Amino acid sequence: MLSSKKKYIVNSNSGIKAQIQFADQKQEFNKRPTKIGRRSLSRSISQSSTDSYSSAASYTDSSDDETSPRDKQQKNSKGSSDFCVKNIKQAEFGRREIEIAEQEMPALMALRKRAQGEKPLAGAKIVGCTHITAQTAVLMETLGALGAQCRWAACNIYSTLNEVAAALAESGFPVFAWKGESEDDFWWCIDRCVNVEGWQPNMILDDGGDLTHWIYKKYPNMFKKIKGIVEESVTGVHRLYQLSKAGKLCVPAMNVNDSVTKQKFDNLYCCRESILDGLKRTTDMMFGGKQVVVCGYGEVGKGCCAALKAMGSIVYVTEIDPICALQACMDGFRLVKLNEVIRQVDIVITCTGNKNVVTREHLDRMKNSCIVCNMGHSNTEIDVASLRTPELTWERVRSQVDHVIWPDGKRIVLLAEGRLLNLSCSTVPTFVLSITATTQALALIELYNAPEGRYKQDVYLLPKKMDEYVASLHLPTFDAHLTELTDEQAKYLGLNKNGPFKPNYYRY
Amino acid sequence: MLSSKKKYIVNSNSGIKAQIQFADQKQEFNKRPTKIGRRSLSRSISQSSTDSYSSAASYTDSSDDETSPRDKQQKNSKGSSDFCVKNIKQAEFGRREIEIAEQEMPALMALRKRAQGEKPLAGAKIVGCTHITAQTAVLMETLGALGAQCRWAACNIYSTLNEVAAALAESGFPVFAWKGESEDDFWWCIDRCVNVEGWQPNMILDDGGDLTHWIYKKYPNMFKKIKGIVEESVTGVHRLYQLSKAGKLCVPAMNVNDSVTKQKFDNLYCCRESILDGLKRTTDMMFGGKQVVVCGYGEVGKGCCAALKAMGSIVYVTEIDPICALQACMDGFRLVKLNEVIRQVDIVITCTGNKNVVTREHLDRMKNSCIVCNMGHSNTEIDVASLRTPELTWERVRSQVDHVIWPDGKRIVLLAEGRLLNLSCSTVPTFVLSITATTQALALIELYNAPEGRYKQDVYLLPKKMDEYVASLHLPTFDAHLTELTDEQAKYLGLNKNGPFKPNYYRY
Amino acid sequence: MLSSKKKYIVNSNSGIKAQIQFADQKQEFNKRPTKIGRRSLSRSISQSSTDSYSSAASYTDSSDDETSPRDKQQKNSKGSSDFCVKNIKQAEFGRREIEIAEQEMPALMALRKRAQGEKPLAGAKIVGCTHITAQTAVLMETLGALGAQCRWAACNIYSTLNEVAAALAESGFPVFAWKGESEDDFWWCIDRCVNVEGWQPNMILDDGGDLTHWIYKKYPNMFKKIKGIVEESVTGVHRLYQLSKAGKLCVPAMNVNDSVTKQKFDNLYCCRESILDGLKRTTDMMFGGKQVVVCGYGEVGKGCCAALKAMGSIVYVTEIDPICALQACMDGFRLVKLNEVIRQVDIVITCTGNKNVVTREHLDRMKNSCIVCNMGHSNTEIDVASLRTPELTWERVRSQVDHVIWPDGKRIVLLAEGRLLNLSCSTVPTFVLSITATTQALALIELYNAPEGRYKQDVYLLPKKMDEYVASLHLPTFDAHLTELTDEQAKYLGLNKNGPFKPNYYRY
Amino acid sequence: MLSSKKKYIVNSNSGIKAQIQFADQKQEFNKRPTKIGRRSLSRSISQSSTDSYSSAASYTDSSDDETSPRDKQQKNSKGSSDFCVKNIKQAEFGRREIEIAEQEMPALMALRKRAQGEKPLAGAKIVGCTHITAQTAVLMETLGALGAQCRWAACNIYSTLNEVAAALAESGFPVFAWKGESEDDFWWCIDRCVNVEGWQPNMILDDGGDLTHWIYKKYPNMFKKIKGIVEESVTGVHRLYQLSKAGKLCVPAMNVNDSVTKQKFDNLYCCRESILDGLKRTTDMMFGGKQVVVCGYGEVGKGCCAALKAMGSIVYVTEIDPICALQACMDGFRLVKLNEVIRQVDIVITCTGNKNVVTREHLDRMKNSCIVCNMGHSNTEIDVASLRTPELTWERVRSQVDHVIWPDGKRIVLLAEGRLLNLSCSTVPTFVLSITATTQALALIELYNAPEGRYKQDVYLLPKKMDEYVASLHLPTFDAHLTELTDEQAKYLGLNKNGPFKPNYYRY
Repeated sequence: MLSSKKKYIVNSNSGIKAQIQFADQKQEFNKRPTKIGRRSLSRSISQSSTDSYSSAASYTDSSDDETSPRDKQQKNSKGSSDFCVKNIKQAEFGRREIEIAEQEMPALMALRKRAQGEKPLAGAKIVGCTHITAQTAVLMETLGALGAQCRWAACNIYSTLNEVAAALAESGFPVFAWKGESEDDFWWCIDRCVNVEGWQPNMILDDGGDLTHWIYKKYPNMFKKIKGIVEESVTGVHRLYQLSKAGKLCVPAMNVNDSVTKQKFDNLYCCRESILDGLKRTTDMMFGGKQVVVCGYGEVGKGCCAALKAMGSIVYVTEIDPICALQACMDGFRLVKLNEVIRQVDIVITCTGNKNVVTREHLDRMKNSCIVCNMGHSNTEIDVASLRTPELTWERVRSQVDHVIWPDGKRIVLLAEGRLLNLSCSTVPTFVLSITATTQALALIELYNAPEGRYKQDVYLLPKKMDEYVASLHLPTFDAHLTELTDEQAKYLGLNKNGPFKPNYYRY
Repeated sequence: MLSSKKKYIVNSNSGIKAQIQFADQKQEFNKRPTKIGRRSLSRSISQSSTDSYSSAASYTDSSDDETSPRDKQQKNSKGSSDFCVKNIKQAEFGRREIEIAEQEMPALMALRKRAQGEKPLAGAKIVGCTHITAQTAVLMETLGALGAQCRWAACNIYSTLNEVAAALAESGFPVFAWKGESEDDFWWCIDRCVNVEGWQPNMILDDGGDLTHWIYKKYPNMFKKIKGIVEESVTGVHRLYQLSKAGKLCVPAMNVNDSVTKQKFDNLYCCRESILDGLKRTTDMMFGGKQVVVCGYGEVGKGCCAALKAMGSIVYVTEIDPICALQACMDGFRLVKLNEVIRQVDIVITCTGNKNVVTREHLDRMKNSCIVCNMGHSNTEIDVASLRTPELTWERVRSQVDHVIWPDGKRIVLLAEGRLLNLSCSTVPTFVLSITATTQALALIELYNAPEGRYKQDVYLLPKKMDEYVASLHLPTFDAHLTELTDEQAKYLGLNKNGPFKPNYYRY
Repeated sequence: MLSSKKKYIVNSNSGIKAQIQFADQKQEFNKRPTKIGRRSLSRSISQSSTDSYSSAASYTDSSDDETSPRDKQQKNSKGSSDFCVKNIKQAEFGRREIEIAEQEMPALMALRKRAQGEKPLAGAKIVGCTHITAQTAVLMETLGALGAQCRWAACNIYSTLNEVAAALAESGFPVFAWKGESEDDFWWCIDRCVNVEGWQPNMILDDGGDLTHWIYKKYPNMFKKIKGIVEESVTGVHRLYQLSKAGKLCVPAMNVNDSVTKQKFDNLYCCRESILDGLKRTTDMMFGGKQVVVCGYGEVGKGCCAALKAMGSIVYVTEIDPICALQACMDGFRLVKLNEVIRQVDIVITCTGNKNVVTREHLDRMKNSCIVCNMGHSNTEIDVASLRTPELTWERVRSQVDHVIWPDGKRIVLLAEGRLLNLSCSTVPTFVLSITATTQALALIELYNAPEGRYKQDVYLLPKKMDEYVASLHLPTFDAHLTELTDEQAKYLGLNKNGPFKPNYYRY
Repeated sequence: MLSSKKKYIVNSNSGIKAQIQFADQKQEFNKRPTKIGRRSLSRSISQSSTDSYSSAASYTDSSDDETSPRDKQQKNSKGSSDFCVKNIKQAEFGRREIEIAEQEMPALMALRKRAQGEKPLAGAKIVGCTHITAQTAVLMETLGALGAQCRWAACNIYSTLNEVAAALAESGFPVFAWKGESEDDFWWCIDRCVNVEGWQPNMILDDGGDLTHWIYKKYPNMFKKIKGIVEESVTGVHRLYQLSKAGKLCVPAMNVNDSVTKQKFDNLYCCRESILDGLKRTTDMMFGGKQVVVCGYGEVGKGCCAALKAMGSIVYVTEIDPICALQACMDGFRLVKLNEVIRQVDIVITCTGNKNVVTREHLDRMKNSCIVCNMGHSNTEIDVASLRTPELTWERVRSQVDHVIWPDGKRIVLLAEGRLLNLSCSTVPTFVLSITATTQALALIELYNAPEGRYKQDVYLLPKKMDEYVASLHLPTFDAHLTELTDEQAKYLGLNKNGPFKPNYYRY
């Protein structure tokens, strides 16, 4: 249906996603009217994510302030009160964070520079609903520099960095978000972005589809002026495809989730590093000589396998798809069924996007001290529920690490309760976030400036040329020097010298 | 002399291919009526290829027999004379070669086994035009076992293994091919396959498009009975797309060149090994510590870079495409312009599919003993012609290796005169050929059995399920065990348990 | 707070060590009488180490208890008061930590099992001075199981885990150690181990040489009964060699620091993992595409380079030794002088054991955001002192991470203030500690049981056979199956079937 | 035919060698008086080596000349006839080969340059017995440039390149060697070098010990004037140690075989490349996905494993030494007994230096098409003799490749009849030979110039400083820039700024 291969979000904080789609989200979507539906899922994920970052996520201590932001009267230094954040006084601290993030997001800074002449978003009125972090702030301020007006809410009730929100508010951005919103707060914030006198959005930047959903439900007429939706997440993209299929999508939408650059960084390159990081931070284990089975050899699995092989682990792979299976073979991994190695491995890692890949039966057969974790989708891959039985003892040995103990004393080490290891137990590098944010900015520019008729009421992938542009903006980070085609070569290849350089089906 | 393992020469039509399509072949195609067009290109390539395998390519010595096969009267042991080969007496030797190849092509043998009950090609009359080698023989005899009748010609005037052709003729296959055909012989052989009383083909298997072209030109009416064309080569596929664009394609055609499995093996996996092999066989150099620049980071470039990095070389990459460039960075290679490193590198390797990537100016600046070779497309990448000037001395130091000497004594080492290194100076493993042949067989079955209307007069990619099937048939070689989805999992993922497992745009 | 997996702080005496010996420690040693000498160095290191693990290092909260242990009256459940720890009531908690460590130290547990029949240390009276952690406890209780009596002090005033010390005291081990000893406490504890009525040690296990020094100074007559010293640290070994040279060593000493197994694990294998871990935990950076210079290509440098290359970094190496330099070349690294790349690299890592490898001049020329860290020896490699000048601003951005900011806004990221990254910002896996502890146990057995005359008053390396035995005891962890020589093969090779298998000069 | 890059055959005496010494050569040595002993071994090896390079080994065709060189009257252009080579007229051709080799042996050329001022070998009279190849010629002419007089014979009856010998003779070197000597010729040539009026050697450069043996036997008095022996081969070194043990060594001898640089290049770095090359040239197999067992994890095994792992093979290791076994584990290889995997592997590679590592029983259990080869020592590792039984059929399928066929049709692919794969089926890069030759030259200089008393009548390893010097002379090839210690740093480390940089026991 939607993207059979397309993963989903992991909403939170960034990123990594599973390789395969899952049918039962349809049900979730249908349940949506109850207003609980996906949100509850999303919240449970972010809750877990939050565990590990509770300290990192808030730079300063404001635990003593229990008043709801909705009940506070705050003004920024210019006298505006068109925002709602935890504490406007934290602005200075947040500003420093934003400045540090700017140093690591050169692509957006380059866009700002190029915008000094023309303002490609002049006249754009963007309403946004994303995680509110220093990186998002750099994006928002870039959109501003490109000529846009912005109003913003959080797409997740836990992920807002209050200091950053304060800094944005201080700079004049109408931001409505704080860490620890209630369900009611969440929708109130979104509404405050949209429902404002004398201002109507003409662009939507969404992450998860909640903002889009709200406008559909409450202010359907707004779509008359809206030029397009840019959607970041698997789930949000899924909903857009469903709207489109149902003939209900009334503006063009851009699926930025599936751009090449974003996919490779969110999955292959990021996971290659985060699998090591996540395992080390939680268990301090040594990788050398360890036997590991990785379930699934998609981009995420490929990243995990490459990293562990490089560290001296012996890696086995399971796959359902014969093509990926053959790739695993050629890359030097024994392709097995999980049952064949479950008794001997030291670590089990799931990256399938599937459910119940690791069952209670598997868990029963694992050897003592076996580590079990999930790099794939949501928390379905390991049947954690099956471990909640009376004969097993759970012992929390540190944050994100549980020992589950069998009656005979055997213990397995379960990480992040089967939720995503890389979100729960490691961090997402700013460079990955920079690619995402740049992709979003370019998609907004494209949709906003596209000539009448280029985009219809459908869901589009980012044009390859834009995808290439995102990549090119990140090359200077590596002091990388691109070669330019000569006229003669361009003619020979039948290509425009400025790209796009590949047919759409190219696999990279 | 005797060389049971020696694989055959792959002419550039069928083998490794460039990452990009190239505009100026259109001209060739248009020039086609002159009958010189592409053939002359093809011949010049195969001529060069032949250099290195002149002995290997013929298992037995028949140099004393100068009579043209067209002038000979030969019969096989069953009394048939419906064939034309060099010497039917070489059949026994060829049969042994075929038997050895069978051992390394388990996928085709598995197809034969499965065909014992039903014959999916019963009634098929296939006319084929490919390289004639032991591996092709295994394919042809498999097609026979699946129920088809076959008539066959060679797609290259140099690549036929006479002994194998004899063995096929002895077994009753009407084969018209020998090593060293003239241009006239070439078309005569093709015509003998097609223009036969009481038999009309209903399927075409082509490699390069010459057979298809001949039928279009001479027997256009035949297409009424033809169910489809299976085309193997980049060039042939290119011509089919042009026919399609021009509205002249009158039957469905299957582009098997771009199937996932074939692409990955022809390019990434094969080149990862053949770059080392080709360099070693020609130069006996040591890779450790050498500085290498690889031009182009497509599948071929990725394979070359991975192999050389693993052997301790220091690898630089040049790219025109920012996405591939970013991949090179993340994989640990410095992205440079060729000019920046040309003075310091020990080896220059081109894998771009472009022309004049290495110019005389670059060659002038290389250091003494620099090795220059091409893994990309045709012989255009290195401007070899620019080296044919009076002040430079050429010295052939061994087969496929020239020293080009500057007036000051500097010499560069040019491999295969800039033609494809892996075709000229190494061999293609049977396993890669097995994947190609299996893909062809399945494409024939699919087109032949497809219900009315599934395929129109257009060019199609192999259905993903078939692609997956080809992969699955090769897994037993690696004792690889695929996992099967449970019903519950298949439902969760929204997939059929038997595949296809990925959306069409999945990048692997 | 609770942290069953958390390893302990390794002070530089015991952990990773430099490749080379360093002359100016002699001075330290000579200064020793002032009682400040090396201790103050050691303390400053451990203080820093403590930063990052201040919570981890103490499992339970006892911050409210300010009484010095020396002033407390404590008894264990058997009524003994021959110990001095922070709080005997923490014993149960410490016991659990010891039990968990036992699971990861199978080699020592195997030694215990083998000791059920004979007690190779029966009659041994061992006085020890090491870090007091769960892993040390497993060693001590193993020595006990082998027949020895033990008395123990801490070799570092910060590294003692109070709960573990309590558990040992509860089990009857006379332990004198707590976290946060004063200098005076430190020597008092050592004295309490040695100066006891009716008990005199006959073996010394030392880590840093303080215990040995104390006995030399205060109770030189004790050496008459002492059969030998086992020393673990680079510094302690250095002092022993000096004593030996000076003719003052009056018992045999075993240098276990330089055993093959220990060296490879402490340096190559451990650093291969900890460089990634240390960088990730402190900076969350992405390794892919980063340019890194590693100063020094000894075992530590080799480990760092291999890991970073595998993660997609571009790695340059500096070396003074042409042999190591050639190895770096053959392993695929550009060998440069630091000056040549200092402007372009993203990360500078020192692993030389030398001093002032990174000077203020280098630091001045680094690019913005460059990360600087030390994996080598002590804190001398980076000239951190040169950064303490008025025009530079230091900003602590998180534990162990300082931004040093130049007047023009350029900032470099200094990790652990130039102290050892892997000790300050990552952890040492139990497996590495297990190898060290096993080596110590075997060295004690060897010295204690050696026939008269095998060892003289000199410093010895662990016999190769013992080294091999340590390795063999750790193979079961990897389910590794060793091959045994047949009689015929052993004869052919001129080897004993049980080893040793290599000549002494073998390089592994 | 012409083969300027083709390296020469390295007979087992000089080339790659096993990790361990082997007891039963003593017997050979004792049998020596019969004059058959080791020579017959050596000849059988070289005979096999010759198989593959019979054409390469002689650059020009002289097969029509059947006269023995001993019966010819030849003079060089200066009128000298103090030499005996195949055909002095081939000198020009040989000179060109030498010039090409000079380009790839920059270290020796650098020595020549430095010798322009002082002649460190002035007065030296060196008698040599080595393979006679272009690389040896560069060594000899370097020794000449350093001031020495040389007389030379071949250490192997097959390996002499006649053209090179001619070129040396033409330049005035008394050379006595040709390809295809008889046993009698062999000793005659050696005698002609030694037994000459008015000239007596004062240095010996030997490869295999035959020259040394001859002087011991025939001219023992010569040793009075001889300052030392430099020996290159494992066998020769073994004999020297035996002489030394027996108290019969009457001059100092230098074991250059065990220098660090030479060992690493002959074993680890060279085998890392040659295992791939040897397998490809003989079998054209694909490495990806193949299961391989490597017997022995010394330097050779480490090289083989690293290369195959990098190419996507799945590698198992067998070991007898627990330390090497643990290294294999940490490097990511499953440590098994051969029996455990023999049924499943595609390739078996021996690198142990042991005998009968692969027995008939193993061979019986291998699967069809399994490839078996030896990278270790001599031809003892695979019990090839056990395959010479009536029920097995041998089929030679190409040079160096035999199929051994079981009654049930199973065939195994035996390479080089169990002799060294890398010597029989690949080539040794000039760079490796350059390191060897430079080491020999420096050892001669050291022994010749050593002050009285530095070396006694014993066998010595090359001083570490010399070893470092060899390495440093090869760094410019890689444009590698060594860092120099500052005075302060040298003092801190207690090192001389010019080395040696490591203690003798350092393992690299």
